[in-house]
This record gives sequence, structure tokens and C-alpha cells, in this order.
Amino acid sequence: MSLINKQWHLVSRPGGAPSADNFRLVEAAVPALQDGQVLVRHHFMSVDPYMRGRMSEGKSYAAPQPLNEVMQGRTVGEVVASKSAAFAVGDAVVGMGGWQQYQVVDAAQRGALQQIDTTHVPMSAYLGAVGMPGVTAWIGLNTIIEPKAGETVVVSAASGAVGGVVGQLAKARGCRAVGIAGGPEKCRLVVDEFGFDACIDYRAHADTRALAAALKEACPGGIDGNFENVGGTVLDAVMLNMNPFSRIAMCGMIAGYNGEPIPLAAPQLILLNRMKVQGFIVSEHPQHWPAALQELGSLVAGGRLKYRETIAEGIESAPAAFIGMLAGRNVGKQLVKLV
Amino acid sequence: MSLINKQWHLVSRPGGAPSADNFRLVEAAVPALQDGQVLVRHHFMSVDPYMRGRMSEGKSYAAPQPLNEVMQGRTVGEVVASKSAAFAVGDAVVGMGGWQQYQVVDAAQRGALQQIDTTHVPMSAYLGAVGMPGVTAWIGLNTIIEPKAGETVVVSAASGAVGGVVGQLAKARGCRAVGIAGGPEKCRLVVDEFGFDACIDYRAHADTRALAAALKEACPGGIDGNFENVGGTVLDAVMLNMNPFSRIAMCGMIAGYNGEPIPLAAPQLILLNRMKVQGFIVSEHPQHWPAALQELGSLVAGGRLKYRETIAEGIESAPAAFIGMLAGRNVGKQLVKLV
Repeated sequence: MSLINKQWHLVSRPGGAPSADNFRLVEAAVPALQDGQVLVRHHFMSVDPYMRGRMSEGKSYAAPQPLNEVMQGRTVGEVVASKSAAFAVGDAVVGMGGWQQYQVVDAAQRGALQQIDTTHVPMSAYLGAVGMPGVTAWIGLNTIIEPKAGETVVVSAASGAVGGVVGQLAKARGCRAVGIAGGPEKCRLVVDEFGFDACIDYRAHADTRALAAALKEACPGGIDGNFENVGGTVLDAVMLNMNPFSRIAMCGMIAGYNGEPIPLAAPQLILLNRMKVQGFIVSEHPQHWPAALQELGSLVAGGRLKYRETIAEGIESAPAAFIGMLAGRNVGKQLVKLV
Repeated sequence: MSLINKQWHLVSRPGGAPSADNFRLVEAAVPALQDGQVLVRHHFMSVDPYMRGRMSEGKSYAAPQPLNEVMQGRTVGEVVASKSAAFAVGDAVVGMGGWQQYQVVDAAQRGALQQIDTTHVPMSAYLGAVGMPGVTAWIGLNTIIEPKAGETVVVSAASGAVGGVVGQLAKARGCRAVGIAGGPEKCRLVVDEFGFDACIDYRAHADTRALAAALKEACPGGIDGNFENVGGTVLDAVMLNMNPFSRIAMCGMIAGYNGEPIPLAAPQLILLNRMKVQGFIVSEHPQHWPAALQELGSLVAGGRLKYRETIAEGIESAPAAFIGMLAGRNVGKQLVKLV
């Protein structure tokens, strides 16, 4: 074949915020298929906050992204050639294809590629509400926060791919759902489209105290569960409103992803309120994925789980889409459309 | 009766560290016994870190200590008069008698008074290793840290009434036990008498980084469980050595009891290491007390659980004993001997 595969390599590690020159666009030939292999053409690739962590070499829960190799990440696409009985040309699949247009996969490699049903759920949703972000919301909410009907659940980055699902699942479980997001547009989306009871624009509040006061107003019964995606002063303000026996699912701390110090101002509240604060990573809970994906898929198919996407066009746009997402310029799930 | 009962009242609330003039020694007549009541003469009274929290009016898990009333606290003593069939003169009992020499108790009030066996366990131990501090250690270790054989458990304030028990129970469960304490005398006690594998003198380390390095040396396999009694930079140093899937039982944060800011420097480690951090209060877990007291009692009776006491003499010494305990001048359980 003479197919050209454009791919983004990480060529240097960012000190603080990533910039375009940390990446290089490389053109590689697609290799010939071996027996058992499948060629996938990517329709969408995902850029996610966790990728920032992997760009650094420091201690992390995952091996760092290697330099001068294709940026890793989840992808959806279509099988365009197959030497495996497991996949046929035309199959829609989700996988870990990375920041590139094509991927050659050993079909026998467990979990490398999964067929998806695109008749009821759009392909792109398998990178969002019916994919890793949605499952992240499901697992943090159901296994750590364990909300009971009548409780109040708060989620930061509420308009994002994870946060939007957290609040909608909490509502479905009979809870009051309150979001925190940056800017009036995102807050309107969270309330009007996602159906949260309230959303607080953290940019409209000058400091922890003001944000805490706004949260108190939005959560008159206090906060029983918090799904944390941001950290820093946002978390400090939430902490001041947590109830006795409340739970925090620590999913992300994007406020510190570029090395900013993000101390927790008053950890004694964990003791005072007998709280549970627990960190988790979605990939470490494979036993919950099937149930989560089934519920999320049927909710999306039935129109009962809403999501928003921000779509950048073309492989060339991937670094800018990623950098913009880290700065909060996306609304909902940030994707890059390749076809 | 003409018995005089000396008692300490709280007469003002401390701004920072408590001082002697927050308390007043009052002489009250012991009232005549009514039917169903018991008169207890206290042999020992307990001063504990949690009392500092109750002296303030701020939000806390317990109602504040009322002004101009007897300071609340646990006591052991002997029944010296009884108009209840439940207790006979001469019975040894543990109760919530407060900072005073005598207490009149309604014997029918559930949990107000419990008879204790002083043939195998000294009376004073029921305020320490076989009392609330020992049960605190047992519950935090067994229900939050849940240590497995081969893991490493760290405890701060390791020579204290709670900390000493934590490490010995961890050793009994096949763990490596490492203490943190203030000064070489306490550290020697923790290793030589309590049998910990190591103890680090936090005063010998200038900052978080130095303390973290010392912990790393003492915990070559990292830390799987931490029982936190101190907070502040001690906790920061521990955090830097916590393993993936480690647990912190938040029991106390004495570093902040007088209102000092004690931010947690790097809460993102909770996420990075998928940690669980959980606060608890011993009185809220009554279902575990019987099993805990039985194990602790038989360990002490059999000489397999060691403890140390610092005993102040006479009711007059109570405020000084309390203030000294908050400053770390005691070794082991701080008691006041009244008889």
C-alpha cells in the first residue's frame, strides 16, 4: 500500500503548559497487514486532560508518553482492511489508536479493539458519554460517592465530558446536582441542557470565600458527594460546604496539571466531617465497565443522557485542540475529526 | 453528706493555646443520692487532645464544652455509695465523670458507667490502651487502614496513648510499623518498649523534605497505611511516601488544634496514588467497641500490649497536665491521679 499516515509525535516535554512545539507532525507509510491484523481508519481521536500528566516524566500512575512516538489516546473508526476473522471491513471500532489517521492492530490483543454499535449511538459518543469519560463518571459516582436519593452531589468541570455525565447520573438517582463551570455559557448548558439543578460560574467569584458562599446558596442542605475534576481553590470552596459523612471522588486536578501548587487549605475538615476522600483511575476498575457502558449506551440511545462536543477538524488541529481543552476553551467533549 | 467535690470549670474559651486562666477550680458539695443513683470516687481522670476542639465554639463534631460547667472527660474510679441494684460499693467503674473528684450517676442511664475488671488490667489502663484511645487505634487501623501482612504502617504521635497501640496492633498483624514522635526519648520508647521497627524524631528534621527522606529510609517499600494524629508538615512528609492504593486514617490533627493553618501541600497525590483518606471518630462506631476492648484487654493482661503513662498528681494539676499534653510534654497516656 502507499497509504500515508499522518501522526503526531511528542518530541519534547513541557515545563509548564504544553505548547505546539512539544509536538511534531510526521508522515509514515502504513505497513502491510500481517495475518491476524486489522487496519483501522480513525474517524475521531480524543484529547483528554489525563494526557498532560503522561507528557511529564515525573511519578505518575501510568508510564510516561515516550518521546518521538505517536501520542497515545483513544480513537473511533472503521475497519478498512482485515486479515482477522474477528473483524470485517466496515466494522465500527473503538481502540487506543493514538493521534494518527490510521492504526494497524493485532486483533487478538485483548481489549485493543472493540466493535461498537453506531445505529443508536453516534460513533463519536464512544469517546465521550459512552466511552472512557462516561465510565469515569459512572465509577466515581457509584463506587465512591454512592449517592442516596435526596442527597446533593457537586461536580466541577460540569460542562466537560465527565462532569456532565456525573450530574445527569446523580439526577437519575434522585439527587440534587450542582455544577461548577467556567463562564456563563457553560453554566447555561449545564442547567438548561444537562438538567442540573444549578451551576456556579467560578470565574464570577473572586476568591474561595465568595465561591463557598455561592455553593452554600446552591446547596442549602450542604454537599454529600463531590466529584472533583479541578482541585485548588475550587476544591477548597467545596470543602467548606461538605456535610458530615460526605464523600469526595478524586478524578482530576486540572488546576495543577502544569505544576502549579494546589494545596488543600483545610484538610482538618476531612476529620471534622468524617469524610472519605478517594482517588481512582477508570482503567483500574475493568469489572465495572460492562455495566457502566450498558447503562450509558441505553441512556444516550434513549435521549436521556445529553452531551456536548467540541470538534476540531483535521489531524493537523490536534495539538491546538489539546492545548485549548487544557485551558478550558472547549465545551463538552473535545474531539478531533479526522474523516 | 458533707463531702466536698473539687471540680474544674471552663470559664473562658482560648484564642490559641489554652492557658491556666481558662479554667477555675470550684468546690461543690456532693448532693445526696437519689434512688437509682450511684456515687463514684474518681481515681484517675483523663486529659485528651480532643478536648481542645470542644473548648472552642466553632463548628465541630461534638457540642462545645459549656462555659462555667465541669470539664467533660473520661474517668475511672470506685463506687463509694449506691442506691442502685446495678452497682455495689467497691465496684470499679469507667465513666464520663469529668474533671472532678466525685460524680453522682443515674445507674440506669445507658453507657454512663461500666464495671471493669481490675484483677488482670490496672484501673488506669481503662483510660488508655483498654479504653477510648486503644479503641481509637483499633478502629482506625482495622476499619480504614485494613492492613495486610507485609505492608508498612506509619503512625504519628507514636509514643502517645493512641499511636503506641496502632503500631503494636500493626506488628501483631504482620506489618512493618514505623512511628513518628518528638524527641529521642519518645523514639527510644517506641522502638525499645513498644517494639516498632523504627521511629523517626521529627524534631531532628528541618523541613518536609528532610522528614520525607528519613521516612523513605525507614520505609524502603513505601507506606501502605498511615494513622494520622498530627497533620501539617508531618503529614506532608508521609504523603510523599505513600504507595499506590494506600490508606490514611485521619484521627487527629494536633498541629492545627490552636487554629494554626495546616494546609495539605500536595492533595494531588491522593489521585496519583489512588489513595483513600478517611476521617473517623471513635464514638461513632459503637458496634466495634466490644471486639476492640476484648482484644485490647487480653493483650494488656497477657503483657503483649505495652503502654506508658504520664501521671500528674492531684485534681489541682489537671489544667497543667492538659496544657502540657497538648505541647507534647507527656510520654504515653496523660492521666491525672486523684486518689
